[in-house]
Parts: sequence; C-alpha cells; structure tokens
Amino acid sequence: MNMKLLITSGGTSEAIDQVRAITNHASGNLGKIIAEQALKRGHEVTLVTTRQAVKPDSQKNLTIIEITNVDSLKETLEPLVKTHQALIHSMAVSDYTPVYMAGLDELRATEDISSLLKKQNTESKISSKDDYQVLFLKKTPKVISYVKKWNPAITLFGFKLLVNVPKEELFAVARQSIERNGADYILANDLKDIGENQHIAYLVDKTREIQAQTKDEIAQLILNTLEKGEQNG
Amino acid sequence: MNMKLLITSGGTSEAIDQVRAITNHASGNLGKIIAEQALKRGHEVTLVTTRQAVKPDSQKNLTIIEITNVDSLKETLEPLVKTHQALIHSMAVSDYTPVYMAGLDELRATEDISSLLKKQNTESKISSKDDYQVLFLKKTPKVISYVKKWNPAITLFGFKLLVNVPKEELFAVARQSIERNGADYILANDLKDIGENQHIAYLVDKTREIQAQTKDEIAQLILNTLEKGEQNG
Repeated sequence: MNMKLLITSGGTSEAIDQVRAITNHASGNLGKIIAEQALKRGHEVTLVTTRQAVKPDSQKNLTIIEITNVDSLKETLEPLVKTHQALIHSMAVSDYTPVYMAGLDELRATEDISSLLKKQNTESKISSKDDYQVLFLKKTPKVISYVKKWNPAITLFGFKLLVNVPKEELFAVARQSIERNGADYILANDLKDIGENQHIAYLVDKTREIQAQTKDEIAQLILNTLEKGEQNG
Repeated sequence: MNMKLLITSGGTSEAIDQVRAITNHASGNLGKIIAEQALKRGHEVTLVTTRQAVKPDSQKNLTIIEITNVDSLKETLEPLVKTHQALIHSMAVSDYTPVYMAGLDELRATEDISSLLKKQNTESKISSKDDYQVLFLKKTPKVISYVKKWNPAITLFGFKLLVNVPKEELFAVARQSIERNGADYILANDLKDIGENQHIAYLVDKTREIQAQTKDEIAQLILNTLEKGEQNG
C-alpha cells in the first residue's frame, strides 16, 4: 500500500549573527537514501531538509522543502505531520540557540548573570576585537515532542546519535525518548560506529533492538517495519 | 603569462564538540567563479576550500584541497603560499573558536571567570540538560597576517565582509587590513549589497576603490588587476 511519508534530513543552523551560526554536522546522506528507497517502493515522500544537505534528484512523488533553524523546522512540520502517515525524523536538530554574545569584561561587570539572558546584540555582525567572548545559549523547543500532539495517528521514527557510549546506554536513552516523545521507534546510533562504508545502528522499540550495518540496511529496516505495521494496522 | 594562483573559498567551521560547530555562512560561489575564470585564462589554480562549498568541476590545471577549521587552514596554506604568485583569499575565516561550554550554575559558582578559559569539556557530545549554557570562545590566529611573512613576493588579495555599514567605514576597514596585513588589495563588500543577481563590491588599494556589480565582474576585476601587475612587474 502506498503511504505518504514525511522524512527530515540534514542539520539545523542557529544564527549567532548575520554571518555566523551554530550548525549540527549532518550531510543529509541517510535521509536521502531513505527517501530514494521509499520512492522506489512507490511511496509519496515529502523531504524537509536544508540547503547544505545532499538531496535525491527531483522526481515524481517527491516534494523537497528547505528549512534553516529549529523555529522554521517546527513551523514547517506542524501542517505536514497532520497530513502524513509516518515521520522519519533523521534531521540533526540543534539543542541550543544563541541568545547573546558578550565580551569577558561585560561578563565580569555583571552582578546578576541571568540579566544577560535577556539582552540582545544590536550589531548585525558581532565585533571581533576582544580576545575572548562569551556566548549565551538557550535550549530550543523539542520538535519531536510535538509530533504526536499534532497527529496521534502518525507513526514516528525518531533518531538518537550519541558519541562513544556503551550499547546499554544507547538503548536506555532511546527508550527514554520513546517514553517522553511517544515515538514508536528510535533509530539509535553512535558516531564511533559510522564510517565511510558502515553505519551500525539499532532500530529500538519498547522491547526489541534490531541491528543494521549500513545506511542502505537502515533504510530497508525502517521501510520494512513501516510497511509491516501498515499491513497489520 | 600563466600564473600559479592560490584561491580560498567557503567558510571555516570550529567544532564545539563532535557533532556541533560554529560555521561561517559562505557558499563558496565567489571563489568558484574566480577559479573558473582564472582557469579559462590559462592560469594554474590551487583551490583551498571546504567540503560544504560549491566547487568547479575537476579539470586540468585545477587542484582542490579541503580544510575544516582555522588551524587546518593555516597549516595547509603555509607551504602553498610559498609556491604561488598570488593568493585570492575569499574564504570566510572564523574569528573565534570554542574553548569551553559550561552550565549557568557552574558560571555562577566560579569566582574567577578566567579560570573557565583554561578548562576543557571532557564529553564527546556536550549534554543538553541545562536550560541555558555558556560557550567561551577565544580569538583564532589571523591567517591573513602570516601570508606576507611566509612569502613577501606574493600578491595578496584579502576580502572584507561587513554588514550594513556606510561606504566610508567599509573603505576605512579595508585600508586598515592593507596596513596591518600587508595586503595589496582588499575586496570590500557589505552583506546588504549581495543578492541573487548582484554582488556589489569594491577592490580597494591604498589610494583607489574600483566598483564591481556582480560576482563575474569581481572575478574579472581581480584577474585583470593581477595580470596588469604581472605585466608591469
């Protein structure tokens, strides 16, 4: 059965000023491969990605939408989540966004540090005279936590990337995300297991973890799981 | 006369941890166009750029080298500057690099803030539990200031991008850079003058400013200036 799949890929960027940003490393490769395989299987794909990410060639049944930061991602996803049957959320989403950049002198002269969290830089390009600077960051909204509120019927595949942790910790963090965000599955992976020709990852649900060895296998695993659920559902 | 030209393009990235970085917005478009026109004119081109930047198709007389951060740029440029006749340094180079990321509580509990500048994060991926975080940054080495020390005979084209300043300020800042870095020319531009189909910029030397309206014109202007200098020299 053909499905309408929403896929995210690439990494968001949070502007520091008009020329600098904090970005998440993410080539967009995995999301591209999932999109291409989904299209081959006859599904309709909406790919939400970034300008920098690699993308599938334009083709029938594929819509590509570009976003920049977490705010634009959230705004873009809300209506789309309501009109798709599954979200495969492989995008690396920024945890923090810049609030204010100060020199060390200003920081030292400030009694109540919280007051700096309410300040805003007025320059379009922050000056680069000081030897040191201090950038205050605040947590971004957790986009994945809204998905099931927007559409309780959607099948949600979240992604979790950790760095150099034991497998047990990876699985535990994945299950926390299932619990907190109502995700159906978390694709859990560790940066140390990702190389030129391998990409070890685990599709984790409440009770099981299924391993994949490459990006192609990850894509097959996700799509097989989705199609089986559709059959049973 | 054929010359050996060293061109930089794109923007450097300074890692915060293994998955996050501070990047300079830079498509690499201008450097790509300068490289393509230089190749058409029969020059040999070494293009130092980034993975994310757009690049010319691979071709005869073109060598492409990818760098990531300011340290790798400096290390890569030193030997190349010594073996090329001109450096056209259009890369957007990071002014600051991350030193240490702390939570607000740690900052509040620290009497001597400078002590945080000596700390290092030990986690590979910095935790995202705090509502706010504080990122300490230090100034990067000014790569352009080394170029004439490495090779006094090289012709150096620096680039200066400001945001929304009067033309007089743009020219003054460009001439400061000529003074400080021994640059022969600074291509000075303002983000407000860069759009889809225009890129207003000024090639500034000690006494004159010549205006260009598009990326193509900028490339012609730089290469004409270089070839004229070569004739006279």
